[in-house]
Amino acid sequence: MALTIADIGKAVLDTEYAVRGPIVARAQELEKSGMEIIYCNIGNPQALAQKPITWNRQLLALCAYPDLAKEAASVFPSDAIAAAKAFISGSKHGIGAYSESKGLKFVRDAVAAFIKNRDGIESDPDSIYLTDGASKGVQAALRMLIAGTNDGIMVPVPQYPLYSATITMFEGRLVGYYLDEEHGWAMSRDLLEDSIETAKKAGIKTKAIVVINPGNPTGSVLAASNIKMVIEFAKDHGLSILADEVYQDNIYKEGASFMSFAKAMAELGEKSVSLFSFHSTSKGFLGECGQRGGYVETRNLPSDVSAQMLKMQSVSLCSNLPGQLATYGMVCPPPAGGPSLPLYRQEKNAILEELKIKAKLLADGLNSIPGFRSNEVAGAMYAFPRFELPKGRTDNEYCMALLEKKGICTVPGSGFGQLPGTAHFRTTILPPRASLEKVVKDVAVFHAEYS
Amino acid sequence: MALTIADIGKAVLDTEYAVRGPIVARAQELEKSGMEIIYCNIGNPQALAQKPITWNRQLLALCAYPDLAKEAASVFPSDAIAAAKAFISGSKHGIGAYSESKGLKFVRDAVAAFIKNRDGIESDPDSIYLTDGASKGVQAALRMLIAGTNDGIMVPVPQYPLYSATITMFEGRLVGYYLDEEHGWAMSRDLLEDSIETAKKAGIKTKAIVVINPGNPTGSVLAASNIKMVIEFAKDHGLSILADEVYQDNIYKEGASFMSFAKAMAELGEKSVSLFSFHSTSKGFLGECGQRGGYVETRNLPSDVSAQMLKMQSVSLCSNLPGQLATYGMVCPPPAGGPSLPLYRQEKNAILEELKIKAKLLADGLNSIPGFRSNEVAGAMYAFPRFELPKGRTDNEYCMALLEKKGICTVPGSGFGQLPGTAHFRTTILPPRASLEKVVKDVAVFHAEYS
Repeated sequence: MALTIADIGKAVLDTEYAVRGPIVARAQELEKSGMEIIYCNIGNPQALAQKPITWNRQLLALCAYPDLAKEAASVFPSDAIAAAKAFISGSKHGIGAYSESKGLKFVRDAVAAFIKNRDGIESDPDSIYLTDGASKGVQAALRMLIAGTNDGIMVPVPQYPLYSATITMFEGRLVGYYLDEEHGWAMSRDLLEDSIETAKKAGIKTKAIVVINPGNPTGSVLAASNIKMVIEFAKDHGLSILADEVYQDNIYKEGASFMSFAKAMAELGEKSVSLFSFHSTSKGFLGECGQRGGYVETRNLPSDVSAQMLKMQSVSLCSNLPGQLATYGMVCPPPAGGPSLPLYRQEKNAILEELKIKAKLLADGLNSIPGFRSNEVAGAMYAFPRFELPKGRTDNEYCMALLEKKGICTVPGSGFGQLPGTAHFRTTILPPRASLEKVVKDVAVFHAEYS
Repeated sequence: MALTIADIGKAVLDTEYAVRGPIVARAQELEKSGMEIIYCNIGNPQALAQKPITWNRQLLALCAYPDLAKEAASVFPSDAIAAAKAFISGSKHGIGAYSESKGLKFVRDAVAAFIKNRDGIESDPDSIYLTDGASKGVQAALRMLIAGTNDGIMVPVPQYPLYSATITMFEGRLVGYYLDEEHGWAMSRDLLEDSIETAKKAGIKTKAIVVINPGNPTGSVLAASNIKMVIEFAKDHGLSILADEVYQDNIYKEGASFMSFAKAMAELGEKSVSLFSFHSTSKGFLGECGQRGGYVETRNLPSDVSAQMLKMQSVSLCSNLPGQLATYGMVCPPPAGGPSLPLYRQEKNAILEELKIKAKLLADGLNSIPGFRSNEVAGAMYAFPRFELPKGRTDNEYCMALLEKKGICTVPGSGFGQLPGTAHFRTTILPPRASLEKVVKDVAVFHAEYS
């Protein structure tokens, strides 16, 4: 009589999300039974001892309880009080009321100014939607793009499984394109053409291409020329672009820098390719995963399509206001000359410097293990090393055994996609240095013994 | 080349959500041009001058910036500091890290205790999922239930359009059942049987029934006998129940009281009907719409179905942590004997008393207008009066004209569903008393003149 598994649709049953799959569930069991677990499976900085940025937390405390500006004024720097007052006044009703479906206009104005300042190009606040983390923005864009079961979305291999899960859930077709592991996980026009051609032969109508830059799980940072190549490719094939740029502040490689798709499109003078760009408060140096702040900026969308996007956002009313405030704090750091700036800079630099050291520590450490090879972790928060797998074993078995033996929780490469015949896992660079050193040592011992 | 409206799927195009539809958009335009608007369209208490509950805001401030417990200890009551410390410790990493996909175990334990205390029955924290407002919980349940384009969901007429929008988006079939306006919007077994029979003849496989109690938009409070009738009906037809109970604290009618579906099922000894019950921090006396806190409790779900539900939650990682904290504050009010309790009680009672006065003021006022008839607003936050419409006019035209002439923003009855040939609008009871009195006066003048 009760709901049974036979009542559940194929789209739901087929959806997979490896980052929180059976290995993580097993890790939690082992932890409960007393084993010490190092969670390398997910980019969750504050669960791995990263401290929040004081500026953001002061804004949240002041907006949550505005009396603090009077009753505890001495605790807060004057610029934090001023910023919180600006938020309360700009939002009209503070953090307790629903905002417009797109998010507070005041915050969208601030995001547009941030993009302008970052890229030197105009941004339209009415084309920005504040979302519960970037995930919800991605899902909104895919919901718009997948109109039928033959609609395909190009997704990198390896990819972040939010994409595969959401495409499955919306009953679209995943069109994988390979990243070039031998060349630092770069994109290649040949590989893109191969992919779309294969999809076409299979009767798939490809609608869009997803690019994750800096790369998850790859840790790569795309060159400007690579980004422009993708834009030309999208233009030639009439595709929209989903640019997942949530790691834009996480660049570690000397000489590398972040270029947004919006800026690259402006440099090319490209105005016909529809673009959805995503950003988040969860990554970078804020690491505010729990506050679920983020936005999607759209470009080159006809107004009737934008109206549909707005309508879909309105069904869930609005994204959470503390997350909107976190986004505000991200795009409006302390003002120059104000009392909060020195601490902010110190906290930001310390986090990014530490991540840079750990990115090198982890990649070098993995490369020192016979049978392992990792590209440089140029950006983002992950290494995705390739390793030799004994015949007859799967990467799932390998990662489960690594967890059982050593308490190291990683995500198997098959959860992200990989070249047939190769094996990888994803590990974050986030654990404290001593833990990461232990991870490297334990993986080396485990790998030598695994058969 | 850019994405065009022809690329957008029928499910998206067909989705409608009247609460934030064209009339609200027009209201915002008029407001920008200087007209004073009374927003009666949405249950957004803090946008209509309701103050937040101090207890909840103190918890959020303390969890956002834990140093306050030391640096501003004198500002906070000791029980608020203790509760915030319990949250930080129970959550392990505070509000900045992703939680488990279901939400913090610590908070789910507290929700289970709240349900046990409310209903006198056991509740399993592992069957509770913390969600971004109740809306996301409803969408999760409907995602599970709608497996194909012939799957039907029974929804009251009138209903809250989250249901119709989500059913359309997931390409299911809406099976409307009428509420009995002549009898205080009660449910009737005959009307339910009519509805499911009609659906069956149309080839629809009905999977579940949605009940909103207290009612949105109707303002009704269902009798226990009515609730038990629905459970028997669901059992006889093998349906799951979605119990939208977000207004459970909003009861104004003398002698009326809230009974949860969970409790009614326990009293019936019913263990075969699958139940999804929803609650939210947005309504009640908290009115924390912006914080997007809420939960769904499931009962009588087989474990393989629960596993699917958990997997779907994991794709978006977790609900926002400030919202989880708001939920914690809702289910854990200040402890007896603590310094926070007197103020909490005073704030809570003042809000609920004021809502009760306004519920009566609005219903009585509307009933004093010739051509209008409203049921008593027994609960929730809305009146849904029936009014005479001049021949050839639609309720959409009527509400748009009411906005243009008087600055009163309501939602036409057709956005919720109504008996053919009848006309209604939904108005909240939330505006301050003086504004509500103005609403009644202006509607009377407008209605007399409208042709």
